[in-house]
Amino acid sequence: MLYVGVDLGGTNIAVGIVNEEGNIIEEGSTPTLVGRPFSVIVKDMAQCILSTIKKAGVTLNEIENIGVGIPGVGDQNTGDVIFCTNLGWTNEPLRRELQKHIDKPMYLDNDATVAGLAESVAGVSAGCASSVFLTLGTGVGGGIILGGKPWSGHHGVGSEIGHVTLEIDGEMCTCGKRGCLERYCSATAIIRMGRQAIIMNPHSMMNEMSHFDPNQVTGRIVIDAAKQGDEVAMQVFRRYVKYLALGISSIICFLDPQMIVLGGGISKAGNFLLDPLKLEVDRYAMYKGIKTADIQIARLGSNAGIIGAAMLGSRISE
Amino acid sequence: MLYVGVDLGGTNIAVGIVNEEGNIIEEGSTPTLVGRPFSVIVKDMAQCILSTIKKAGVTLNEIENIGVGIPGVGDQNTGDVIFCTNLGWTNEPLRRELQKHIDKPMYLDNDATVAGLAESVAGVSAGCASSVFLTLGTGVGGGIILGGKPWSGHHGVGSEIGHVTLEIDGEMCTCGKRGCLERYCSATAIIRMGRQAIIMNPHSMMNEMSHFDPNQVTGRIVIDAAKQGDEVAMQVFRRYVKYLALGISSIICFLDPQMIVLGGGISKAGNFLLDPLKLEVDRYAMYKGIKTADIQIARLGSNAGIIGAAMLGSRISE
Repeated sequence: MLYVGVDLGGTNIAVGIVNEEGNIIEEGSTPTLVGRPFSVIVKDMAQCILSTIKKAGVTLNEIENIGVGIPGVGDQNTGDVIFCTNLGWTNEPLRRELQKHIDKPMYLDNDATVAGLAESVAGVSAGCASSVFLTLGTGVGGGIILGGKPWSGHHGVGSEIGHVTLEIDGEMCTCGKRGCLERYCSATAIIRMGRQAIIMNPHSMMNEMSHFDPNQVTGRIVIDAAKQGDEVAMQVFRRYVKYLALGISSIICFLDPQMIVLGGGISKAGNFLLDPLKLEVDRYAMYKGIKTADIQIARLGSNAGIIGAAMLGSRISE
Repeated sequence: MLYVGVDLGGTNIAVGIVNEEGNIIEEGSTPTLVGRPFSVIVKDMAQCILSTIKKAGVTLNEIENIGVGIPGVGDQNTGDVIFCTNLGWTNEPLRRELQKHIDKPMYLDNDATVAGLAESVAGVSAGCASSVFLTLGTGVGGGIILGGKPWSGHHGVGSEIGHVTLEIDGEMCTCGKRGCLERYCSATAIIRMGRQAIIMNPHSMMNEMSHFDPNQVTGRIVIDAAKQGDEVAMQVFRRYVKYLALGISSIICFLDPQMIVLGGGISKAGNFLLDPLKLEVDRYAMYKGIKTADIQIARLGSNAGIIGAAMLGSRISE
């Protein structure tokens, strides 16, 4: 049997035909062109799915179901999108609209949850009884996988780990609260700290690397400068590692999963991030000597969205 | 069938014979007398269990299994206690030792988890698909119940919600970290804030209520003074509600359970706590308009420990 996975983004709709082992056998994509009517975007999505199936040389009969990873919150029972801020969608009947074009079972879930599911099926956390996935990008997305199934909460608004409070009255967050974890653990956070550090310490290597314009600082510049031994960048990086370790330590205290998987832009730092992070998390352990969650870098990269979406049906309906 | 539930505390070992509906049909207790050898304490526990069974007029054959709620961390597979700080136990084979005296299946779990399980079987969260239980006492204990079963994590150290970070570099915690949730949301926290408030505002009603000795402030004094309209106490109470709301909002963002149940000393404030708390949690909602966890006060009181322990076997082995 084959599955269709759709990674619905603000720029592109990426489609993949995925086999039972979680391998993508054919891909396609179409621009989202946000701002167009909902039904027109869904029609494009359907046409992209159908053309990708054709390109793969398979028939619609061979497709078991379709899964869509959405950048927001959905209702898994009705198949409705509840909120997708980036797409400007509120309460849109995605399943019903898609099924007008393709008569197949259709599932949806949050994109970070879907990526976490992909890692737990075909990636670094394959075989784990429980895992928590974190995307360290513009924000911090979260995916919780328990017993092989995605956990998005009773009302579908769970796994938003980026909005767990890490600092009372801390940095203002886009969600309206203050001090959310993603204000300290995202790429945006490391950029903010890097920018502040350059202004205070113009001799930092980061200044030249960002062409003497603090607005051009990126997460990569901070990490590259830290790797090269720039003390100012190292201070920013150490502070970031501390914040991320506190966030991960909270996940361990709360849910104690078998593995915590890091994805998103900042995770590309690999062992340069992982090694000090593990030491810092160990320092925060409540019970010294008891093994807790293994922390690993995600393996599937940008394919995780398609693979995890394709797996939604078989996991949810098990 | 009947079950034995044991609530193992630092002062007393409370034993109950519990029926399938979660009702206690007979009770017994024996002092823990901490400091005595492990095997002697377990022997007393066994004798108390046997005498309570006898007192109930039932036979050992009618007992399905024994569950023990421990004030610490246990290994559910081996039945060993890993840590019980208050009892001074580390890596003690509780199941093996107890089975020397009573040959029955024996289960153990953390006391807050066990109390959460009790509420989900016979208390306020009965019938909920998922719930999180918080004890607002000296510390903040947590219990996570998913699909009717306790979730204590992959390594048995989960549901320690009291040690989720709420403030980077915040108040020093007994666990070695800083800024743990229980430093802001426990009875100890409200007492600390009340004490500080009296020193700054000696005209507060709380001062007389604590006999002009800040060390005699209790959670109850703060709440009673706030109920009577003392402005200084109200300020402390509002700050406490804000912290607890941030903690609960984090639980919603992370796990999104169907219900959050509040137990422990502070929960005795009832609606005086619940009403402003719900308003504050709503204020922090990420998606306005989507229903999230119902917040309720626990119903079973101090019986929850015995009832939940008794239910451990049937829930874990399902």
